[in-house]
Amino acid sequence: MTPSAPTPAYRRLSVEERRSQLLDAALSLFAHRAPEEVSLDDVAEAAGVSRPLVYRYFPGGKQQLYEAALRSAAAELELCFDEPRTGPLLPRLARALDRYLAFVDQHDAGFSALLQGGSVVETSRTGAIVDGVRRAAAEHILRHLGVTEPGPRLRMTVRMWITAVEAASLIWLDEEKQPPADELRDWLVEQFVAVLGVTAARDEQTASLVSALSADES
Amino acid sequence: MTPSAPTPAYRRLSVEERRSQLLDAALSLFAHRAPEEVSLDDVAEAAGVSRPLVYRYFPGGKQQLYEAALRSAAAELELCFDEPRTGPLLPRLARALDRYLAFVDQHDAGFSALLQGGSVVETSRTGAIVDGVRRAAAEHILRHLGVTEPGPRLRMTVRMWITAVEAASLIWLDEEKQPPADELRDWLVEQFVAVLGVTAARDEQTASLVSALSADES
Repeated sequence: MTPSAPTPAYRRLSVEERRSQLLDAALSLFAHRAPEEVSLDDVAEAAGVSRPLVYRYFPGGKQQLYEAALRSAAAELELCFDEPRTGPLLPRLARALDRYLAFVDQHDAGFSALLQGGSVVETSRTGAIVDGVRRAAAEHILRHLGVTEPGPRLRMTVRMWITAVEAASLIWLDEEKQPPADELRDWLVEQFVAVLGVTAARDEQTASLVSALSADES
Repeated sequence: MTPSAPTPAYRRLSVEERRSQLLDAALSLFAHRAPEEVSLDDVAEAAGVSRPLVYRYFPGGKQQLYEAALRSAAAELELCFDEPRTGPLLPRLARALDRYLAFVDQHDAGFSALLQGGSVVETSRTGAIVDGVRRAAAEHILRHLGVTEPGPRLRMTVRMWITAVEAASLIWLDEEKQPPADELRDWLVEQFVAVLGVTAARDEQTASLVSALSADES
């Protein structure tokens, strides 16, 4: 159900179907324009429904719709990290990054708007949604690394790398998606290994991880 | 001229002195509390002047004062990167990081509020001020590296590292400033060298930089 093929308003959808239709339309608009440039009329038009119907589902108006769309994007983004915990570690990380970069590619301007903030509808609540995704990403990585009690240095290393990946995706969007996604993915994996290596020299927990990682690879 | 030693209002200050006194007072308040928890009354009290006087200098009220304080903090932050371009490179980077971490240490909560956004007075203008500092930091680093025309991979590497340093400082503030600043500084320098090394394998410009760097060190 895409905005380019609007569902006629007379088709009866269940409440859940209608809600998800509106969220899809909103996400697709937010993906290509900054939130402040999207109106409820645009969302109604894209979904092929009336403005009052959008308000019936999102009585809080654009702010509520934006937050719901953000939550739905965050949930989708978190699915990227959902990788079976089997097989060598680095290919797992590479697969998660593939899905993440596909998400960034697909949501484009909406992804930048979301992460860069500065939007008129950006609030501490929307900031908390984005932070939640970052935390989830860090937890996924640590779980894959088999670490249940990460020390401060390992945790900091993982969180710094996640921020660097975010920065890389924003720059990537700015620079017409160069280098190609698969090269960017490999480069990011290599950076992860490199910064883990640096931390390993300062932290025993990370050092044993790094030896496990290289045993894993060979 | 600190808030703890207020200047009596009757002392005649020049317009510039008064303005800078008010900015100092505001910065020192924003340094310890989130902007939304600072009122113009607080600023007036900290500066030992009347509220109307604060308004005379900042007729736009708190938003204007906050932006001016931010600009003044940004200018101070940019000074941290101002390092003579002589001697081996990594010690220069270490000295700049020392000053940067001292700034983070001193401004504490205000620094987090500034970078994390989510503040009620955060706007695209304040976001642009923060972005300006990031850009300045990247330019300083590239100038120190002696690069006038950085390719996309080198530029991306430097910008990713700067974001990682930002993330590290926020985590550092969250974790009661552990590890100690000098250890954090060395760790960040090592990470810079490591990610440059990774990029060197994919980018000739970075590769020649890395060889120059190691020649520099030995």
